[in-house]
Amino acid sequence: MIPKDHPRYQSLVARERIADAVRSNIVVVEGASAHGRGEAFDYLLGEASSASAKRAEKTAAAFLLAGSRPIISVNGNTAALAADEIRELAEASGAAVEVNLFHRTEERMAAITAHLQAAGVTVLEGTAERLLPLSHDRALCLREGIYAADVVLVPLEDGDRCEALVSMGKTVITIDLNPLSRTAQTATLTIVDELTRALPRITQACRNMTHETGEQLMADHDNQRLLYAALQRMQETLADAMD
Amino acid sequence: MIPKDHPRYQSLVARERIADAVRSNIVVVEGASAHGRGEAFDYLLGEASSASAKRAEKTAAAFLLAGSRPIISVNGNTAALAADEIRELAEASGAAVEVNLFHRTEERMAAITAHLQAAGVTVLEGTAERLLPLSHDRALCLREGIYAADVVLVPLEDGDRCEALVSMGKTVITIDLNPLSRTAQTATLTIVDELTRALPRITQACRNMTHETGEQLMADHDNQRLLYAALQRMQETLADAMD
Repeated sequence: MIPKDHPRYQSLVARERIADAVRSNIVVVEGASAHGRGEAFDYLLGEASSASAKRAEKTAAAFLLAGSRPIISVNGNTAALAADEIRELAEASGAAVEVNLFHRTEERMAAITAHLQAAGVTVLEGTAERLLPLSHDRALCLREGIYAADVVLVPLEDGDRCEALVSMGKTVITIDLNPLSRTAQTATLTIVDELTRALPRITQACRNMTHETGEQLMADHDNQRLLYAALQRMQETLADAMD
Repeated sequence: MIPKDHPRYQSLVARERIADAVRSNIVVVEGASAHGRGEAFDYLLGEASSASAKRAEKTAAAFLLAGSRPIISVNGNTAALAADEIRELAEASGAAVEVNLFHRTEERMAAITAHLQAAGVTVLEGTAERLLPLSHDRALCLREGIYAADVVLVPLEDGDRCEALVSMGKTVITIDLNPLSRTAQTATLTIVDELTRALPRITQACRNMTHETGEQLMADHDNQRLLYAALQRMQETLADAMD
């Protein structure tokens, strides 16, 4: 057990949750190492949501609310870390939820769907088709889900898939702790923040958003500025350590 | 299969090797996420050995050669990534090799020992005793191994154990990609470099070292300077990305 007053309590709980999820086949081993990469970048962010990340989260809420068919694409790591937060966000934003995996097997699809449903998430089901401009099974998604969506929130996404979704003309919102990743660089809107800090803030913003605020946030959105702010925050952490 | 001309070939091979090692019980899931953290920091180092890392590797060779009982402490990640490199370094430096695990079970001890032996490494064996100033099984090591050693190379070590070894008066050399980790900050000598790039350079330096050069490297050694240089290199990567 990790003591609650440990200065890095949240981070250590998430790490443990990912390890447990590997043992229950919800997360693949590659997902555990991806989680570790995120931890390192979060450490450089001071394990806190920056002002620019908070702005990105409000802007994400505006895009989800403005979408006519918004959807949240959930992978193993996201399900393991944030099933409750996904349920809340789906309710507040009106977005559908589709399970979409990079390392896709029927067993994992079923395990993750069951895990989300146990947390009260309504999960889109149906027969996946190869509808994304990608090779092999990475092209799979639901025709009435991600394929038809105009706004897609894809936390912790692979670079190729993020690019494919953008190339289809969708508004792609990602949550990615590495501002240098291809996903972060390619998405329409990149939230450089830790998943379980970001999701409740997007949910809260969905609940409080006025039409005018939403329009303004979308009009002012500049993803390069968000990425720049994240890089700057990491630089400051390194500079502080050099003092 | 990862194509050999992929710009991040080495990093992707290491990632795959760690995932395979989890499946064969040599690496624990926590080791896979630790590997991911290292990958993120290595990305910020440009996935290359800096001039200061190369100097640290030469200095490590000097300390190993100057030790009367040098030893290499090997954990699951190190065994999975660098069994051959450990054999070469043990031969060139005269250091013994002991398996020492944070998540210690008899099964993993046996699997890792067998894996190293299959690569031709001579592994110290015997009955571990609780000899380190740490609680529970983390105190375990061999009386004629780590306990008796004056110079210990511990790649990828836990902060508590690094501190315990230093408190026992040993010269502790670590290889750690995170210059801010407690291990990096506590060790006598911190090599901020990727394991499979670092080990062959230490081996090479052991083969070529003269007594005078070794004495000079040890006399001039300043760990804060090494850590500072690593932080500076990471800052530069971030600054370049902001251009």
